[in-house]
This record gives sequence, C-alpha cells and structure tokens, in this order.
Amino acid sequence: MNYSFKNDYAEGAHPKILEALSRTNLRQQAGYGLDDYSDEAKKLIQKRLRHHSEIHFVSGGTQANLTVIAALLRPHESIISAETGHIFTNEAGAIEATGHKIHAVATADGKLRPDDLQKVLDAHQNIPHQVKQKLVYISNSTEIGTIYSAGELQDLYRYCQAKKMYLFLDGARLGHALTAENNDLTLEIIAKNTDVFYLGGTKNGALIGEAIVINNEALREDFGYHLKLRGALLAKGRLLGIQFLELFRDDLYFELAKHANAQAMRIKEAFSQAGCHFLAETYTNQIFPILTQDQIEHLSLNYEFYIWKKLDDQHSAIRIITSWYTPEDIVNQFINEIKQLK
Amino acid sequence: MNYSFKNDYAEGAHPKILEALSRTNLRQQAGYGLDDYSDEAKKLIQKRLRHHSEIHFVSGGTQANLTVIAALLRPHESIISAETGHIFTNEAGAIEATGHKIHAVATADGKLRPDDLQKVLDAHQNIPHQVKQKLVYISNSTEIGTIYSAGELQDLYRYCQAKKMYLFLDGARLGHALTAENNDLTLEIIAKNTDVFYLGGTKNGALIGEAIVINNEALREDFGYHLKLRGALLAKGRLLGIQFLELFRDDLYFELAKHANAQAMRIKEAFSQAGCHFLAETYTNQIFPILTQDQIEHLSLNYEFYIWKKLDDQHSAIRIITSWYTPEDIVNQFINEIKQLK
Amino acid sequence: MNYSFKNDYAEGAHPKILEALSRTNLRQQAGYGLDDYSDEAKKLIQKRLRHHSEIHFVSGGTQANLTVIAALLRPHESIISAETGHIFTNEAGAIEATGHKIHAVATADGKLRPDDLQKVLDAHQNIPHQVKQKLVYISNSTEIGTIYSAGELQDLYRYCQAKKMYLFLDGARLGHALTAENNDLTLEIIAKNTDVFYLGGTKNGALIGEAIVINNEALREDFGYHLKLRGALLAKGRLLGIQFLELFRDDLYFELAKHANAQAMRIKEAFSQAGCHFLAETYTNQIFPILTQDQIEHLSLNYEFYIWKKLDDQHSAIRIITSWYTPEDIVNQFINEIKQLK
Amino acid sequence: MNYSFKNDYAEGAHPKILEALSRTNLRQQAGYGLDDYSDEAKKLIQKRLRHHSEIHFVSGGTQANLTVIAALLRPHESIISAETGHIFTNEAGAIEATGHKIHAVATADGKLRPDDLQKVLDAHQNIPHQVKQKLVYISNSTEIGTIYSAGELQDLYRYCQAKKMYLFLDGARLGHALTAENNDLTLEIIAKNTDVFYLGGTKNGALIGEAIVINNEALREDFGYHLKLRGALLAKGRLLGIQFLELFRDDLYFELAKHANAQAMRIKEAFSQAGCHFLAETYTNQIFPILTQDQIEHLSLNYEFYIWKKLDDQHSAIRIITSWYTPEDIVNQFINEIKQLK
Repeated sequence: MNYSFKNDYAEGAHPKILEALSRTNLRQQAGYGLDDYSDEAKKLIQKRLRHHSEIHFVSGGTQANLTVIAALLRPHESIISAETGHIFTNEAGAIEATGHKIHAVATADGKLRPDDLQKVLDAHQNIPHQVKQKLVYISNSTEIGTIYSAGELQDLYRYCQAKKMYLFLDGARLGHALTAENNDLTLEIIAKNTDVFYLGGTKNGALIGEAIVINNEALREDFGYHLKLRGALLAKGRLLGIQFLELFRDDLYFELAKHANAQAMRIKEAFSQAGCHFLAETYTNQIFPILTQDQIEHLSLNYEFYIWKKLDDQHSAIRIITSWYTPEDIVNQFINEIKQLK
Repeated sequence: MNYSFKNDYAEGAHPKILEALSRTNLRQQAGYGLDDYSDEAKKLIQKRLRHHSEIHFVSGGTQANLTVIAALLRPHESIISAETGHIFTNEAGAIEATGHKIHAVATADGKLRPDDLQKVLDAHQNIPHQVKQKLVYISNSTEIGTIYSAGELQDLYRYCQAKKMYLFLDGARLGHALTAENNDLTLEIIAKNTDVFYLGGTKNGALIGEAIVINNEALREDFGYHLKLRGALLAKGRLLGIQFLELFRDDLYFELAKHANAQAMRIKEAFSQAGCHFLAETYTNQIFPILTQDQIEHLSLNYEFYIWKKLDDQHSAIRIITSWYTPEDIVNQFINEIKQLK
Repeated sequence: MNYSFKNDYAEGAHPKILEALSRTNLRQQAGYGLDDYSDEAKKLIQKRLRHHSEIHFVSGGTQANLTVIAALLRPHESIISAETGHIFTNEAGAIEATGHKIHAVATADGKLRPDDLQKVLDAHQNIPHQVKQKLVYISNSTEIGTIYSAGELQDLYRYCQAKKMYLFLDGARLGHALTAENNDLTLEIIAKNTDVFYLGGTKNGALIGEAIVINNEALREDFGYHLKLRGALLAKGRLLGIQFLELFRDDLYFELAKHANAQAMRIKEAFSQAGCHFLAETYTNQIFPILTQDQIEHLSLNYEFYIWKKLDDQHSAIRIITSWYTPEDIVNQFINEIKQLK
Repeated sequence: MNYSFKNDYAEGAHPKILEALSRTNLRQQAGYGLDDYSDEAKKLIQKRLRHHSEIHFVSGGTQANLTVIAALLRPHESIISAETGHIFTNEAGAIEATGHKIHAVATADGKLRPDDLQKVLDAHQNIPHQVKQKLVYISNSTEIGTIYSAGELQDLYRYCQAKKMYLFLDGARLGHALTAENNDLTLEIIAKNTDVFYLGGTKNGALIGEAIVINNEALREDFGYHLKLRGALLAKGRLLGIQFLELFRDDLYFELAKHANAQAMRIKEAFSQAGCHFLAETYTNQIFPILTQDQIEHLSLNYEFYIWKKLDDQHSAIRIITSWYTPEDIVNQFINEIKQLK
C-alpha cells in the first residue's frame, strides 16, 4: 500500500500513551474531567507556562474552537481570521452555527498582523448596523505551516488589548511551531500574550485531545458549563488527562513534534535540491513544493498527498505532512524518488 | 479508598479494546471516520440490526443527543421528553442552545407513553404562536433504570408516525436494557420502531463512543456535515471504530452489560431481603433503594453512591450503579454490609 | 357582525396618534430611532421614572422579550417564568430559538414569588451539567389579568439581587396594571426594582410599539446592536417615537388603560351579580368568568370571546378582554345579555 | 435646516396611506395578519404576479432577510451574497446570528452572475468539513443602485436550480428597480424566477412594511411559525395590510418609485453636465457622483448626503438618494448649486 503524507493523524498514539492507558485502566476515577490524571496533567502544563492559567481538555480542534469562541463572545460580536484560518474554511460553519460572523483577511503567509486587523476595523464604523469585532483568531503553526515569532505575537497582543479585542491562538500544531528551527516563541510568552490558546494533542501523538488554556482571568467564569453544553465534556475525562500527562511528564510533546519537523525538513531539502520552489517558506511539519503535472504523477505512484493548489496548467503546489511517527526509512525512500524527478 | 457505585464510567475500557488499540496503532488510516475499522464496525452493527441503517460514531451522549436533534429539527420544532430525560435535566441546556424547546412530561417510571404525548399535543393548538412538537425523545434504559418492552416501543412509534413526529431513542445504556431479565426488545425491533437511536459505548466498557443509528432514510442526508459543525467528528475516528469493532465482533457488548446488570440484581436482592423498598422497579444496572439516614451513613463508611432523592426527614432513595467491571468480590463485601443494616 | 371581546388589539390607534402621524409626516428625520420624536418621547418617559434609564422602542412584545433576554444572557444561562408566562407558551419558542432554556413554574395566579424561585434553584446543583438560572421573567399585569403589589415586586427584586439574577418585567399590559383599582405600584418603584422592563403600547392604544426600559446600567452596553441583529430596529423609528410622545405627553397612556379596566370591571360586576365565579380575581382589562355550556352558547350569539379553559363537562372559563376603545354602549348591551343568563 | 439626500426613509408615509389608516381605524379586525385588509392586499399582489405565491407582511428589511433565510436553511447550509449585499455588511450579523455563514463575492456593480457563484462552489469540495452552499441572495435594485435585467435574473435562476440552490431576492427597493428607465423585468418574471423575494414598502412610501412573496411551494410550510419566533408577527397586522392595500390598489407603489427615480435622474444629469463621473452607472433613486473635496464642501453647505467612498486624497464618491416625496423645487435648487460647481 502507498505511504500517505496526507496528514499527521493517520496513525494512532505514541506507545507510551497506550501503555499509560493500560496501566491506569482499572483505577476508579471521578468523571467529567475531575479525575486525578487530568488534575496532574494540568499542573504539569501550568508549570511550563509559569502562569496560573485555567486548563480544560477537549477531544478535538473544532470542538475547542467553537467552545472557546462561543463562550467568549456576546451575540453581536465577530471574529477576525486569516482567509486560510481553519475556522473559516474547514469547520463546516461551526463558528457561524454558534451565531458569530468571521471576517476573513487575505494574507500571503497565513499570519495576521496589526495592519490586517486595522483594515477590518477601518471598514466598520462602530455602529449598531455592523457587527463589533471582538476576537482575533490565529493559528500557530498556521494552516500553511508558517509560524509566529515572539515579536509578532507580542505586537499582535498589544494591538488587540488597545482595541479591547481578545486574542485566541489555535494550537492544533503548536508543538510543531515551538520546535521549528526558526522559532523563538515559548509557552511562557504565549501565556502572557494571548487570552486563550490551546495545545494540540491529536496531531502530535495523542489519540485525541487538545488542552485549552485560559490565561485571561476574566474569561474563566463558568467555562465548564460551555464545555458541557457543546457536548465537549467527556464522561471518561481520564482519557484526555492520561494522554497529556504522558506528553508533558517529560518532553515527549516536544520530541514528537521535533521528529515530525525534522522529517519534513529532510524532504524539503530534497525538493530544493531537485530545483523545486515552494508555495510558502515553512519550517514545520507541512511543506508545499510546487511540481509539474508529470512530477506529481510520478510521485503519486507510491505515495499519497493532497494537491493543495493548482497554479497553472502545468504546475500545482502539493502538500506533504509528516507526523510524530513518520519512519525515517520511508522518508529515505521518498527522498530517493524526489532525486529522480526531472 | 472507598469503592464507588456512583456511576458506570469510573473505570477505563475493557482490556480487549486496549489490546485492539495497541495492535492496530501504527497502521495508517484515513481520518474523520473513513478508516477501515469504523467501516467494519458499522457493517457488524448493521448485520445485527437486519436493517440497512446509516451509522455514525461520536464520542459521547450529550454530543449524540444535540447533534441528532439539531440535525432533524427546523427552528420552530420542539421535543417531548420525560421530566427525568437526560436532555432535560443534565446537559446544561445543550438542546436549547441549538434553538429548540423541550416539553417535559412528569412520569412515574421515566417512560413515555402515547397518552403522555397526547396530553402535550392537546395543550397546543397547532398555531404559529406555539412551537410545533416534532420529536419524541426516550431513553432505554431510562435515567431511573427502567426499560421499554417491545410492545411499548411499537405503540409509541405507531403513535409518533400517526402524528408525524420522529422517535429518537437515547441508548447510552441500551446494552443494559437489552440484557435485563425482563427485556423482550431486540436491536431489530428498535431499528424498525425508531427513526434514530444510539448504542452507548462509554457506559458499557468503551473509553468513549456512541454509535448513532439512523433508520429513517429521509433523515440521513448530509448528516456528516452536522457532525462536523457540532465538533463531533474526530480526526482519529479509528479510536471509535476500533472500540465498536471489539464490542460487536462477538457478543462483548452484551456480555459486559449482562455482568453489570447481574451485579446490580445481586445487590437489589440483598436490599430486598434487608426489608428495603425501591424508588423504581428496575432490572438493569441502576437501583434506587430507600434507606434511613442511619443506614445511609453506615454504608457510606466504605462505599460511595449518590443520594438520589430525599423522601422525608428520615428516608432517602440512594442510587447504586454497577459497571461492566464491578468485581464480584466487592459486591460480596457490599452485600455483607447490607445484611447488617437495621 | 358580532362584537369581539377576544383581545385588546382589534382596533387601530387612538385618534391623537393618527393625528400626530399626519401632522409630522413630511418633516425629514434621521432613521433608526435617532429622530427628534423618539428623543423627546424618551425624555418624557424618563421624567416619569425619576430614574435615568436607557430607553429603546421596538414594534412588539415577542420582539422585546427575545431581544432583551438574548442580549442579557450568556449561552449557559436560563430563565425562570410562570407556566402561564407569554414567553413560555405563546411565542413559538422564540426564546429557546436564541439558545436559552425556560424553567416553568406552576402558579395559582400567574405571579412568581421568591419561594417559587427558590424551588427552581433547589432543584439545580450549580454544576456544569445543569443550566445556570440567571433571569427571572414576570408579566404585569399577568397573562391572567392579576397584578403585582409594590411589596411583592420589591421582595422579588431583593431576592433576585441576592441570587445574582436579573429581574425582567414584561409590561405588554403595564398600563392596565398601573391603573387597576387595587394597584399600589408606580413607574418609579418599577424603575428601582427591575433590571429591565417594558411599557406596552400595542395593547394600549398604539398601532405598534413597546418601550424597553433598561434600569441596570451594566446592561446597557451595545444594546443597539442587539436591536439591529434581531431585526427590531425600524428604519422609520419616528413611527414609534411619535406614538409614545402622544401617549406620554399628558396622561393618555393611563387614561386609555383606565377606560379598558373600567369596562372590564363593569362586565365583571354583571357576571358576579348573575352568580358566576371567576378563574382568577382580576382588576385589569381581562376577566375569566366561569359559565355553563348553555350560557356560553347564549352569549356567543352576539359576542366573540375565547373559551379559556374547560373545567368539566358542563363548565368552562371564558376570557373577556376590553380595550382602550371598547364602547360603553356595547358594554351596556353585553351586560343586559349577562343579566338574562340562567 | 439643510435638506437631506441621505436616504429614502426620512419622511413618513404617502398621505393616502395615512388616510386609509384613519378611515379603517375603529373597525375591529383579527390580529396577527389575519385581518381583512391584509387578506385583500395579498390578493391584489398575487394578481399582479400572475402566480399563486404565498405572501406575508413584516415590518422591515433585516427582519425579512433573517426570517426568510433562517426558515429556508438547515444548520450546515450557507448563503452566497455580493460583498456589497445588505445582509453581509449592514445587518449587525443578523444572518450569522441565526447560525449561517455568508460567502461574500467581490463584484464591480453589486450584481451576482452564474460565474461568481461557480467560483464559490469551485472553492468548496462538497465535503462535511465545509459548509454547503444552498441560498443565493441578491438585491434589486442593488445597494449601489444597479438593476438586474430579465435575462440576467433568468440565467441566475436557471443556474441556481441546476445546483439545487434557492434564489432569494431582497426587494427593499424593488419598486425603484422595476420603474427604472433601463428595466425590462416584471413582477411576473420575478415570481417565476426566484424562490422567494420581497416587495419593499418602507423605502417606497409606507411607514413600515415589506411583503415577503414565497413562490416555491415547497418552502411555504409552517412559515407563520418562523415569523412568530423571530418576533416578526405584528399583533395589529392591519397596519401592514392597509398600507400595501393602498400601494397596490392602483399603481401608487410604482408611481412613488418612478417619482424618486425621476428626481435622481435629474440630479444625475446635472452632475454629468458639470463634468462629473460616477462610481456606478445607475438609473434608480441612488446616484454616486465623484466629486473633489472642494465640491463636496460646497454642496454640504445646504444639503446632507453620505460620503460613500474615498477614492484618493482629492476625490470621493458621494451618495445621493431621493425618495417618493423629494420635492421637485428642492431638486431644482440643488441642480442650481451643482451647475455652479467648478
């Protein structure tokens, strides 16, 4: 069977996680997130944040996004997102279904900057005939693999605070961002420069699970109710706690992301040497090489990947994603194929 | 530590499930429910239904309830539920948050009958000033442990069809209902006599997971979109598929429920012999013995359980729930304590 | 044609209102509630309140109810209402459609008291599995014609404040309540003892229009947005302003209500003398005499009214409503018919 | 006081409407749209449509838009609109508040064509991760004064039907569109080539009121419930019926629009002769001349209008709107001022 580079959730969980699930399996625990494992996992994450944030575990990214956004906003308030933002394009209207408009901003690299936000504000007149912009949604790494620098995040947060808007960071691939070679962000800086963010587990070695981190104290009240009313509160919350405990007990969370990034960078280097250009300059586990139709057909014989964007009749950008597990030897074989591209 | 009879989700999953997760862990699979395991599990369940229903797996009961109900109803349509119905009392307003009113009916045993429904319809005049009753929500086993007979379900469905209302069965504890000693319902009869129902996994030996079964063909269109927009579509859908595959490969689903029921019945018998009465006559894994304050205090020394309902100054009904795992020897010890009640 | 006592909105508007519409018709005015007439009308009402409340005009009662409630509540918060409350029974699920649950309390007279509220709170445990009660909805006069005394309203508000709940008064028939012979409430007391209320115009001589009064300063922010997003902001807001200006320039609002009440009381006296009992003891423009089937048939020959509630095979309570216009001579004729009842 | 060309709702209603309100004022009528006047008005409109459409009256445009769209769509379905569409920019997120995403398409003239729609469909893959496009929203005349030809509307409807999408036409200014000198559309053609549309009264001589026309029989079921649950059902529905009766008894609706258009065309001609260009080529009651800063300041001395769009440091387009009432002599004076522009 062909090896798939289509996404980073094609395999199950890291073996340590499965072992922990077995080891703890029969110990009785309180339900709905009140188990000892969730408690311990939250403390481990808080320690790394050096910030007393409130933490909640949920099963997936769309659920995290819709629960957070709907909990924070009043009915007339809207969201600003990059046009490539996951909430804008790939969540079946989940955010709008909770009643809120998303303003989409076209960007070159999937990242929002204060100027982008200002343009949206300028296009609105702060009158009751138009929605009120209240929350800025960013992803790190972005949906096209780019990352925010510490300075960029700080600028953005300063701007949001000046405009009384919340900053929410979707960290479905935050591990990959924080371990990219060009990264200078830390969890501490994120905790100080966002109102809410989440640490993605599903795309980084867990079976399911995202850790929502609420830094802004004013936004914590009653958050548990929102989890329950969106169907996000698992009866066996231990399943989430145990996984994050393994991911953050030592540095597993970061090692898995580093592995994925490293394999992607090896493939990127091979495409570069084969003379290919890329749709975006990325250092995380997603790369977007631009290939000819013939090259795509050739690589498709033994590997699976998405055609991301058709550029002209002869060229398209493809998307290659590596995971916490992607075996080095398969990458070696793939690199050999790339070397033979004409 | 005290042993808890508070609920049936205090332990993890049946070992066969954990083994299957390990065994399949590194096989690459398509995401979002399109994996081979989910596919195979659906076929196994369909075979037992002898009905070509459409099946979708989600992580929990509230999520199943809100996703199904919001997918089926138009904005002006409402739900009829028993006052004890999970959606009415214990889901933080999750159903109303999707925009729909629930009419609650007081019942003696947690079960709805055509007469109950007729009373609700009679209290409305089919005019635009009042909501339109469109969906009947029942649970089997109910929130107080009782079950529907085949005849009762058939009567209810016939009534619903005559009134052009949908019948939706919450089967969070359907395994326990179908293996109760006084049960005469089968999956086949349920498939023919409900529009939608679900088979609960979370409370019957899975880590998470409910299998939504859509019997009514007219209600299947675009259901996948509803899953996604409610945050119910797991990226690693394999986690759900693998579990239901183990539960339905042989008879594990029914054996686990039978075990839970058997332990509850042993405890019930002990309370009976100790002269206790019960709040409801149940044959599933929930029992509601009525005890004196002293008796409750005595049992609380070594066991945990909820006080369900205060009846007078001296008496309350407690709730004892057993699980797929509840060890026989702990039940033996508990029975010994019960025998000593005065 | 038969004369109808079915409701208090069967005629158009008081002639002074129509005259004012004609007189002001061609003066250009700003749209969306920013016209001079609305401005002046708000000042007149504020003067009577002796409280600097914020005032907004909308076209009808359901619109006022849904806009206010949806503006005040967060997604997990619920409403407590009498079972007879208009929002619970007669608004097609408009409140639930904005995402909020209503807890209905059975009452003898359509009025809520602290004890009723406490019972609802007692039935909930302040945990994320259950909605959080946040707003108390009352009507004055109630849907069955009864009214709150000043003391009752003060008790209720004190209780709500202690429990951090909002008190919202639906005043669709507030004019009738404030001019009832047994009334001791004033607009001033209402302004001090509710968070939000409204003064109904539609049922008291206006073509359309309710004046929403926000007393609680914390609840005023951005209310204009909520009006717009619910479709409640009229382009020609002058239509509402002009009407309330006429109603409150002098005492027209109270005179019209007094007229309606007086006619109802005359009819009530006639039914009393004919030996009839009543479903509720009312002093406003709604009365609910209990009649035999024969009596109902007799009166139906020349008059229209609703049969409110069937009491037994031979008896029903009917509802008679009078309006700002109900002519005295028609009431005289009706009284003559009542005198002939056996 | 300066004369305002800011909008077409600055005056009240046509005198015939006020007279009709007075004439009918004291006749008792059924409430909630069941009055004789509404009934008669509906018949008059149906006659002009030569199509047995279902008609409902509501008070305003945003209310019409949100009620229709929320009634037609299921939770996962979305709307395509021009970027200038009223629902996208000027309704405070009213549509999103009912749970639906709007895809905005940039256009040169405010009009949608099949190609625009196809681009939106092409950008989506018909998978549950993305919303499903189901309704196309157009305005005629558009928000920038342009109109659809019969051929354009027919093309659009044919396309929508092929793609199983609904076509909904916002006719807040439909009178102006149908009486423009370059118009070839008729009410009959619209009735055959849209699923739902409405005839705007508020901007064409009524106090309030839009007539929603449901042509597609499949979309009529239970529409009354949707009106009620959105707060759009007026108790004194006569207010709407009486107005539309006057507007459609003879040709008043069209005469008023023709008057507004004629005044705008006279002003347009004056600007043309003064050498001005226009932002869009319009033949209805809105014109968008491009002026220098000095010219704008000069005209502002005695007239009010909106600055619509800043084009460069020295030039902006302004918006001039005329109404059913705009006096010819004031237009004469305004034209004199335009003649003196340098």
